[in-house]
This record gives sequence, structure tokens and C-alpha cells, in this order.
Amino acid sequence: MVPEEYLERLEATTAEPDDLFEHFEQRSVAGQTHYVLTAARHGVERGTVIVEDADVVVRGYPSIPRILVLDPGIPSFFEGGETVAIEEKLDGFNVRIADVGDPLAFTRSGYVCPYTTAQARDSLPLEEFFAAHPRKTICAELIGPETPYTTHDYEGIDTHEFRVFDVRDCESGVPLPVADRRELCEEYGFGQPRLFGRAVASDTIATVRDTIDDLDAVGREGVVLKSADGVQMVKYTTKTQHHGELAYAFSMPFDYGRDFVFSRVVRDAFQAVELDESEEQLEERARDLGESILRPMISTIQDVAAGETVGERHRVRGDPETIDALFDHLHEHSLTIEREFDQCENGERVVEFVKVADSSRDRIRYYLDGGTRDE
Amino acid sequence: MVPEEYLERLEATTAEPDDLFEHFEQRSVAGQTHYVLTAARHGVERGTVIVEDADVVVRGYPSIPRILVLDPGIPSFFEGGETVAIEEKLDGFNVRIADVGDPLAFTRSGYVCPYTTAQARDSLPLEEFFAAHPRKTICAELIGPETPYTTHDYEGIDTHEFRVFDVRDCESGVPLPVADRRELCEEYGFGQPRLFGRAVASDTIATVRDTIDDLDAVGREGVVLKSADGVQMVKYTTKTQHHGELAYAFSMPFDYGRDFVFSRVVRDAFQAVELDESEEQLEERARDLGESILRPMISTIQDVAAGETVGERHRVRGDPETIDALFDHLHEHSLTIEREFDQCENGERVVEFVKVADSSRDRIRYYLDGGTRDE
Repeated sequence: MVPEEYLERLEATTAEPDDLFEHFEQRSVAGQTHYVLTAARHGVERGTVIVEDADVVVRGYPSIPRILVLDPGIPSFFEGGETVAIEEKLDGFNVRIADVGDPLAFTRSGYVCPYTTAQARDSLPLEEFFAAHPRKTICAELIGPETPYTTHDYEGIDTHEFRVFDVRDCESGVPLPVADRRELCEEYGFGQPRLFGRAVASDTIATVRDTIDDLDAVGREGVVLKSADGVQMVKYTTKTQHHGELAYAFSMPFDYGRDFVFSRVVRDAFQAVELDESEEQLEERARDLGESILRPMISTIQDVAAGETVGERHRVRGDPETIDALFDHLHEHSLTIEREFDQCENGERVVEFVKVADSSRDRIRYYLDGGTRDE
Repeated sequence: MVPEEYLERLEATTAEPDDLFEHFEQRSVAGQTHYVLTAARHGVERGTVIVEDADVVVRGYPSIPRILVLDPGIPSFFEGGETVAIEEKLDGFNVRIADVGDPLAFTRSGYVCPYTTAQARDSLPLEEFFAAHPRKTICAELIGPETPYTTHDYEGIDTHEFRVFDVRDCESGVPLPVADRRELCEEYGFGQPRLFGRAVASDTIATVRDTIDDLDAVGREGVVLKSADGVQMVKYTTKTQHHGELAYAFSMPFDYGRDFVFSRVVRDAFQAVELDESEEQLEERARDLGESILRPMISTIQDVAAGETVGERHRVRGDPETIDALFDHLHEHSLTIEREFDQCENGERVVEFVKVADSSRDRIRYYLDGGTRDE
């Protein structure tokens, strides 16, 4: 059970420790005990981790609200006429890197990812950073084609890299102001998401619209707008991203399709209305939407019919111990893994594997065999 | 509370009356007390009605399972190599007409619809039928452009008509064999869904495929296959129907979109795979799918932006008392109704009205005003 003293430190919106602490899960990580909040409760974010041995609290990263129209979405979100920074939102794996004795990379849900941890220790000057800023959390996106979680290609990234989009107080979760954070990242040589501009909120609409247009054209995700103090955040994404996520979800329809589809088509419709698209643009968007849903699903059904493996394909690269730790980690999460390639290249181990989409495989098999649905 | 003697008559799969009867809702209808089961429980169908005053049980209509592929869907559903009848599935309003003192039309969920009741009394020889078959239920679809529930156009139907697709024992729910039922309907002059053929299950696949193709070409819904005794039933639907339902749902996205979308796109994908569609056919299907989702939603968002009423438009026609009773009925179901046309034509009252899609209107307004989503 989590020690009671942490209730106050978490600034929870309940006076009853039991109300909150019964939702913390106890995990053993490299000789430490981690207490992890598995769902947001009483004002404390999901993925918040308490490491009693190190007397450290690592707050979960807050979920970022989304607007469906830029105008008046932006000015109505940032009410005070304050200055807003427009940064790129990247399609990668979101982790918090904190020093809890050693620096560890925590996933959104509070697990320690051994692969991301090793890559972070390898490619970021963590020792130097945490010596000067022991109570900060580095919030970063792991992007590139060689991660165990995402596969989005970014120009110029062959394997994987970090982009630091936030630096926060470990325990309170309070972020650095955008300008200070960008300067600090520069100082340590951390990669950062691009900054597209800063302006009074209502003056950013045109810039954001143009930026989204440019990002859409090259298949990138979208933007996050942040108040100068870094506290208020809101996101908006491109058509390519909506359709890409649908294609991903419907390549594993009975794993992700149901949860993904409605929100993405809604985003698409509001975007089309706000952009006041021409008949031709609408036709193009509708066709692309339909193809994003139908083609990956058809292809997966055909794969199941042919007895092929269906799921997410990933390639990872690292020292052999890290790779072993990664697969232990994936197995602990009850994932079915099939390795399709496993080889040493210049002292690094490179593995290509599939996270098998069990639910999709089994449901599709069942329907192909003539099974019925009640609907 | 429902009298205990009905437990046995319902052939429930529980020996505890309370387990079942607490799910019955008591309603007062034209001086009678109706006990209505609001959800399927213990082997008793949703919409089952007990009318104690008339000592009648009206079993709910069972939900019909669906296959996603015809081959091997049909032969594996009808295992015994039995004879199967292929009948048309119509897109209308499903009611059970039973004599509980007077003949009443019950909806799927067990409400008495005053409009459907009046139309049934008017256009079907109910007195004659129930005199000879007092313990039967007529299961019928009310179809055509002038019903308060559906608007599907059928060639040759200007207002509305009944199609009787089943005749069942009121209390046991046991259906008449298909051939006997069709003969009985003929005898009383009841309209019926078309019969496309009868054959051993595995021999129906080609017929069903051709039938679906023909129905698809003229925008009709699909087929129901029934074992000769009428007990086993399974359905399969056309592409036009999937896309039509999506267009309907996304014209009111926050009322129906989320519930409708996943199941329809799944049906579409399995159909495309089974038909082994050409590149051109796939493109056409994908484009049509995207348009069915996107265009009605965009149009509704634009209507909300313009301050117009959004919802389902219907036209009904009947004697003034029936029309009044219908609107009382709709208001009892907490529907927001806007009448757009209300006039007498040759002694009949004709009303055009909108069932306002409150949730869609309010959510769309909220997002257009810059509201955020947590996702």
C-alpha cells in the first residue's frame, strides 16, 4: 500500500487516502517498488508513479484536449488573449524520463520501457542533465521507423530519435515555460519538435491553418498549441493523420477498429466544413477515407484466409541485453510476438517482429468459417 | 407485479419469478395493464408483453443472427442439410399484431404504436383473421415513404403497406412453417415479402448471391433465410443497405454514428472479400463508403452552423384522431418533434415532421463554438 504521506504531495482532490491508493498498482522494477496509478483519479493523472525507495513522485502526463475547428477553437480555448506557441505534434511513443536513482523511461501508463530507457541513456546526456536538474522530468517522443511501438517514417531518421516536447517538475507536474524549455533543450542538445510561431491566440489561426496544410502535404501529424507558461495545451491534426490512424486501426479491425473509427471520421468532417472544401476536395477526402477503412481491413481478412500472421510489424535495434529485456517486457504484457528476423549487424542486434493481433485473427477466422453476429 | 403463474407459461430459464419479473415494466394502455420485458432475460425475448386482463402473452420477436459470408455461412448455419427458404428482408418498421381484446400493433420493444395499429386495422382483415386464429401473432413490416419511423421508398408504394413475414403462436412464439404461413397470408390477402427460392442449404448460395446482386442494384436491403419449419433464421444484406444505414446514421452523428459505423464497415469488408471484387469495384465501394459517412455528416454540421433543424424527417397520413394519438405517443417517448407541414387532404390529415436529433445538434454546436474533445 502507498504510504499515506504521499496523499498530500500528490495534491489529490480527496481527503481519503484509500479512495486514491486502492487504484495504485504495485510493481517491482529493478529492485525498486513502483506504485502506479492505472487510471486518472481525484485529479491525479493516469501513469503517475511513486518510487518510495527514491522518495520520488513522477506525475503522469496530462491528456491534451483537442479542438475540431481552429476558429473559434483557438481563441476560445486561450481566453485571456495570451501568447501562444505553435509546436509540431509528432507521431511517436510518448515517454517521461525521470531520475529515480537511475534514469528510467516511463510509458503513458507508468510502465518502465527497457528499450526506450536504454536508447535514452545512450543518446541523451541524462547524467549531466539530472545532475543539474534532479527533480525534473523530460517528456519526449521516441520517433522513427525502428521503435517497438510506432513506425511512422520521418525524413532523415533512419532508426529512432528523441524529440523533447516538455520538461516538467517531477512531483508537481508543473511545466517549464515554452521559451525556457526550448532554451534548456538547446543547451543539452536535445532534439525538439519544430516551433512554427508565437502570437496572441486569435492571431495564430492563419499560421496554424497554413502549417496544417504543409504538414498534411508531407504526411505529418499536426500541432500542439501551448500557452507561454506551458500549462494550457490543445491539439489539432491533419487529414493524413486521421486517415493513417484509420488504416492502422482497420488493419487490425477487431483490436482497434471500433475504438478508433468514430472519433477520426468526426475530426475529418469538421475539418472539411471549416476548410469549406470544394466538390473536388470533398470527393478526394471521401475516397481517401473509404480506402483507409476498407483496404487494410480487406487485406487483413485475406491474410487470415491465407493463414498468414496479422498484426503490427516493428523493427528494433540495440545491444543484445536491451533487446532481450524488451521482449521480456512485451511478453509480460501478454502480447503474442512472432519474430520474423533476428540478426547481428556491427555488434547491434536487429529484430523484426509482429505483435500478433489475436482478436482480429480469431474474429475474422470465426466469420470466415460462417460464424454469425447478433446485430 | 406480474402474476407468478406466467413464469411457467413464458418457459423462462429461471425458477425464480423475481429474477425475471423485476425486469417487466408496467404500462397502462387503453384501460389495460401491459407488463413489458424491456430487455431479453432468462430466454425470454425483449418486448414480450403480458396482458393479464386478456390472459394473453405476446412473445417478443427474436433477433435474427447475421452471417458475414454466404459460403460457408449458409451451410454451416443450417447444419442438417435441410430445406431453406430465401425471402426478402425489407427496410421498414417491425411490429407484431396480436388480439389482446382488440387487435394492437406492438413495436419490437413492446410499446403499442397507435399509428401502426390504426393502419393495420384499416388495411388488414384482422377481425376475420383473429376470429379464426385468436392465438396467433402477425409479424409484419410497415414499409413505404409515409410511416413515422422509416422512409425507405419501395417501387409502387405511395404511402405505406404491410408485408407479413411471419405468423407465430402468440404465447410460445413458435412460427408457422414457411409454406403454411405463405399460404395463410395468401388466403387473407396479406402482402408478403418475395420468396426467391427454396433449396437444400448448400444449394442456395448461388441463388442468394444473384438475388443480393439484383437487390443491391435497385437499392433494397437483403434476404432472410429460414428453415422450412420457420424456426431457424439468418440474414444477409446488400452494400447499398450498409452504405444507406451509414448515411442515415451520420446525418445524426452524435445520435447514431458511433453505434452504427463499425458493424457496417465490417459487413462491407467481408462482402468485398467474398465477392473477390476487381480493383475497379473496390474503388467504387470505398468511394461510396467514404461518401456515405462524410457527406451527410458535413451537411448536418453545415445545417447546425446555419441554425437549421437537424433530425429525421417523416410524413404521415391518417384520420385526425390517429395522427393526434401518434404525436402523443412520440411525445411520451421524450422525442422533440417539429411539425413542418400539417394539412387536411380529402378528409385525411397529412403531417410532415422532424424528430429533432438533439444530441447531434448540441454536440455539433459545442464543437463549432470551439469546444474540446478528450481524445
